[in-house]
Amino acid sequence: MTTAGRLVHLGHYVGSIENRVALQDQYECYFLIANKHAFTTRAEQPAEIRQSVIDIATDWLAVGIDPQRSAMVLQSEVPAIDELTFFFAMLLPFNRVMRNPTLAQEIKDKDLGDKYPFGFPLYAVGQCADILAFRAQLVPVGEDQLPHLEMTREVARRFNRIYCGVDPRTDDKDHLAAGGLLPIIEPKLGRVKRLVGIGAPNPETGQLYKMSKSLNNAIFLSDGADTVRKKVMSMYTDPNRITGKEPGEVDPSKNPLWAFHETFNPDTAWVDEHRELYRTGRIGDVAVKKKLVEVLDALIDPIRTRRKQYESHPEEVIEALRQGTRRANEVAEETIALVKKAMKQDYFGRRLSIP
Amino acid sequence: MTTAGRLVHLGHYVGSIENRVALQDQYECYFLIANKHAFTTRAEQPAEIRQSVIDIATDWLAVGIDPQRSAMVLQSEVPAIDELTFFFAMLLPFNRVMRNPTLAQEIKDKDLGDKYPFGFPLYAVGQCADILAFRAQLVPVGEDQLPHLEMTREVARRFNRIYCGVDPRTDDKDHLAAGGLLPIIEPKLGRVKRLVGIGAPNPETGQLYKMSKSLNNAIFLSDGADTVRKKVMSMYTDPNRITGKEPGEVDPSKNPLWAFHETFNPDTAWVDEHRELYRTGRIGDVAVKKKLVEVLDALIDPIRTRRKQYESHPEEVIEALRQGTRRANEVAEETIALVKKAMKQDYFGRRLSIP
Repeated sequence: MTTAGRLVHLGHYVGSIENRVALQDQYECYFLIANKHAFTTRAEQPAEIRQSVIDIATDWLAVGIDPQRSAMVLQSEVPAIDELTFFFAMLLPFNRVMRNPTLAQEIKDKDLGDKYPFGFPLYAVGQCADILAFRAQLVPVGEDQLPHLEMTREVARRFNRIYCGVDPRTDDKDHLAAGGLLPIIEPKLGRVKRLVGIGAPNPETGQLYKMSKSLNNAIFLSDGADTVRKKVMSMYTDPNRITGKEPGEVDPSKNPLWAFHETFNPDTAWVDEHRELYRTGRIGDVAVKKKLVEVLDALIDPIRTRRKQYESHPEEVIEALRQGTRRANEVAEETIALVKKAMKQDYFGRRLSIP
Repeated sequence: MTTAGRLVHLGHYVGSIENRVALQDQYECYFLIANKHAFTTRAEQPAEIRQSVIDIATDWLAVGIDPQRSAMVLQSEVPAIDELTFFFAMLLPFNRVMRNPTLAQEIKDKDLGDKYPFGFPLYAVGQCADILAFRAQLVPVGEDQLPHLEMTREVARRFNRIYCGVDPRTDDKDHLAAGGLLPIIEPKLGRVKRLVGIGAPNPETGQLYKMSKSLNNAIFLSDGADTVRKKVMSMYTDPNRITGKEPGEVDPSKNPLWAFHETFNPDTAWVDEHRELYRTGRIGDVAVKKKLVEVLDALIDPIRTRRKQYESHPEEVIEALRQGTRRANEVAEETIALVKKAMKQDYFGRRLSIP
């Protein structure tokens, strides 16, 4: 749904982006840049947030989001999202929002203690509106976002019950047929839920860390070929191999090298063959890493080329956002009008346009 | 600022409405009907809320709000308010919002326990946006709303500091001159902060209750002449007077009869004279009550006449709201555009119109 305030890395790619690019062929897609969300933790850095918006939009265009087919949407220019957030906040018990496990985890991860703005829990409600503004059928999400999606489903069920007279015993999939306005949305998880980083495991648990910008263990889609090569060649593998002739660890949960080959190398025959050679000490790290550099280059190179093109034409990036946001508002304005009608708050209409 | 979900009574009149009617002569005024706020406690009664909106707008027109001079504004059709709410939520610490004394009191008064929606504390943030959307100079409020206004002032100071570079030591009144976008707003209290109701005092404390619809001790501006007469004639006074010849209580905090005369009777000489007669047991309740009926009739009758006119033309009420909301959006859209510019989130513009 959103990737705010960080450059896109391979973990995002297999977690959701790849999914999004593929979904373009089957669905009318809306991809939201959550610039308002970014203010929850960076309210004092507006210029950075602006730069992130441009960076993320550039990343998306680079990975293959086609602005002719899909709408890239700037959250802050879809007022219906803010209006829905307010209405949905009335349908969610305070304690339900505060108990949201994603929220609790984020407070812990970011070490916020009790020093967070009211906007922080508000955003959990806002995410319901981000999604329901488009009355989407499905939402490509990372696994950590599932609790937010569950809240979105709750809000939609409650809305349909109170304002559309839908019987609460109705099956989720039948809500629209039963007269409900808001769909009970299904998540669409990426094929790899958790890509490991390139660094050594947690010394206490022995587990590899998840790829994350802040852990400095990520390969970014914006990395140059040299950087990718250096990152792969210095990647953590099996610390027990000294000469490269010892038997090697091939469990992808313990050796990132094999996690990456399994995730990104389309030549599964090569992977199977060399995994066996590695396991039995007949091939060294270097050869397997070199192959991975090739594999990642084949993935990232076209992305890098498109990225360069858009970086030298930032006006095209803004234009893609403008076009996408305009299309998003066509749907979102219809949604908010229908929502107000169902809530009997339709006193007179309005017209919103992005010139 | 807002009078949502209840008919207007004399307590509102002297607490703020009288003020509003007078302010029309000096200021460009925006009067907001907080229909979204109403959903905090009545989300399951949308039809009632709709009726309240019409009733309140009718009341306002009846008391003398002139829709040609002042804008009567429907909150739910000013999306900039929702957008500002979201941005302001990022500037207010969570604990600051939750500690707001008005909020705590309302939770207690309405016996909400921990059963309130997330929208309930959100609305405290929303009130900052209700006010700042219009970059108002002053706000006519009741005393119980002062903590909300204090939060509005805090948000404006913080916004000006972070996004407009205003030195935090700047005096409130100098914020705009120092480059701030949002004014640090002054409250304008009504002349009577707390009008008592017509009923007996709290048996435990001996104190008269505040006039309130829910305590069933209110005289409404929409009450007919007969109802007003009956309410006044059966009003609580001094329980120690049996024959009317005993010395009478004239302390307005103990005897509503004198509270009402002091508040509403413009003939202060009459009040002074009869207060003394009452105090010394030379005049009975009935005569003083009859005079009060006259006084209230003179106040309420023109209101009642205008009310009848608008009640038989509800389309004029909606039209006044439409016109007022249109004018409100002209200002609020300018505010949100300036706010986004200050926050560096001005990527492209939009046009909003109410046909």
